[in-house]
Amino acid sequence: MEPEALIPPDDLLALAHRLADRAGEVIRPYFRSGIEAEGKADGSPVTLADRAAEEAIRGALAAAVPDHGVIGEELGRENEGAELVWVIDPIDGTKAFITGKPLFVTLIALLHRGRPVLGLIDQPITRDRWIGAAGRATLLGGAPARVRRCPAVAEARVSTTGPQYFTAEGRRAFERVAARASLVSFGGDGYQYGLVASGSLDVVIESGLKLHDWAALGPVIEGAGGVVTDWQGRPPGTGGDGDVVACGDARCHAEVLALLAGAG
Amino acid sequence: MEPEALIPPDDLLALAHRLADRAGEVIRPYFRSGIEAEGKADGSPVTLADRAAEEAIRGALAAAVPDHGVIGEELGRENEGAELVWVIDPIDGTKAFITGKPLFVTLIALLHRGRPVLGLIDQPITRDRWIGAAGRATLLGGAPARVRRCPAVAEARVSTTGPQYFTAEGRRAFERVAARASLVSFGGDGYQYGLVASGSLDVVIESGLKLHDWAALGPVIEGAGGVVTDWQGRPPGTGGDGDVVACGDARCHAEVLALLAGAG
Repeated sequence: MEPEALIPPDDLLALAHRLADRAGEVIRPYFRSGIEAEGKADGSPVTLADRAAEEAIRGALAAAVPDHGVIGEELGRENEGAELVWVIDPIDGTKAFITGKPLFVTLIALLHRGRPVLGLIDQPITRDRWIGAAGRATLLGGAPARVRRCPAVAEARVSTTGPQYFTAEGRRAFERVAARASLVSFGGDGYQYGLVASGSLDVVIESGLKLHDWAALGPVIEGAGGVVTDWQGRPPGTGGDGDVVACGDARCHAEVLALLAGAG
Repeated sequence: MEPEALIPPDDLLALAHRLADRAGEVIRPYFRSGIEAEGKADGSPVTLADRAAEEAIRGALAAAVPDHGVIGEELGRENEGAELVWVIDPIDGTKAFITGKPLFVTLIALLHRGRPVLGLIDQPITRDRWIGAAGRATLLGGAPARVRRCPAVAEARVSTTGPQYFTAEGRRAFERVAARASLVSFGGDGYQYGLVASGSLDVVIESGLKLHDWAALGPVIEGAGGVVTDWQGRPPGTGGDGDVVACGDARCHAEVLALLAGAG
């Protein structure tokens, strides 16, 4: 029998808010400030803001919950065997950040024995913030967020960050869904998942997401009535290829999975 | 000899600001309000906000400058033979609007004898507003905007709204540029051109733009040191196919045109 998921108490939600506040304070002055991207081993752009924000978050965690673990996109893993581990991506959507598009987000998740029980998606420029946690309704800016009813892909607003992030096979699978959708929109990284939680989008399909990209998504979307899985319908991260499908409506999700698998 | 372009006086710039203020007031309450897209003959989504904002702008124009012409995306042409004609697209980026992404913009342009002499790009949610006019430096939020130095495509941040807006041939042409670029980002509609003017993006390549989509772009980008043409290097709209290339740096623009034409 699977152990009960921790219901995060208020003080952990308050801590998540403080971490996002700190990250936003650090990030905002860098946005459109003319700084250039530095190179990273894998070629993806990363900014000084990314690193500085992760340092600020780690500092706040060390002061508040020194016994918790931390996994960050920029600065590695610390005490990752702890019962409670924070997973942070200070700037998800570095290309959006670099190109001046206010769609990048700070992603913060809390894992309890490896399972996400709290997720926060924050856009520091527009100040949109979604927070979700096991046993609670997801909030956007303090008000309840709710997914949109969307019983079929034909009615769905579908989004992905960009077609270049799929493998050739993944792209064909995405195209099978896109061809049936009511609307297809590009761009948004982690921001898109918040938009599913608050009913602006119905479907987000992506590939190659790492733990720090997807850990926050489940609590946010499930707390708003939606569902997040990999392309086979398993919990995100199961297959190790980072495929993610987020849907507001479970009926639409079932149809998307079938289309991704090759039906239609 | 070509006649001199009108240098728009202060009162016309102030009027453009007032039009954008009115549009923003009308649009903001509709954003993420749960309204559904209504159908349009060409299948593109359009919202109640689009129509209400254009009505508000037309009302303000009729009161302030009844002798000027108006061409609007939603409500047609009026007195279009006038020496001064306003061209308005209340919500450029209706898909972004519908999917909750704060990248849609209000576009306002003023034509003098058919030639754009004033352009305004406004994002009502982030409150980013670029205004440019013949004989003046482009402003973003009241401060001078300036393009980024980018001598070659290899250093360029390239953006387009989505690959689905190109013809098959256009998409191959775009891919020739994208393959050489430093970074490719999707999404943004008219917002992207403001980002060129303020140096966050170096290149925007699009197809199928109509007069109301491109009329505001030249004054904004040229007043910031950049260049906007069609894919053959002519003024936008020359060939009638709505191809647009906007670049911050003329050297990069020359290389982009060659790549679009099939070089490389």
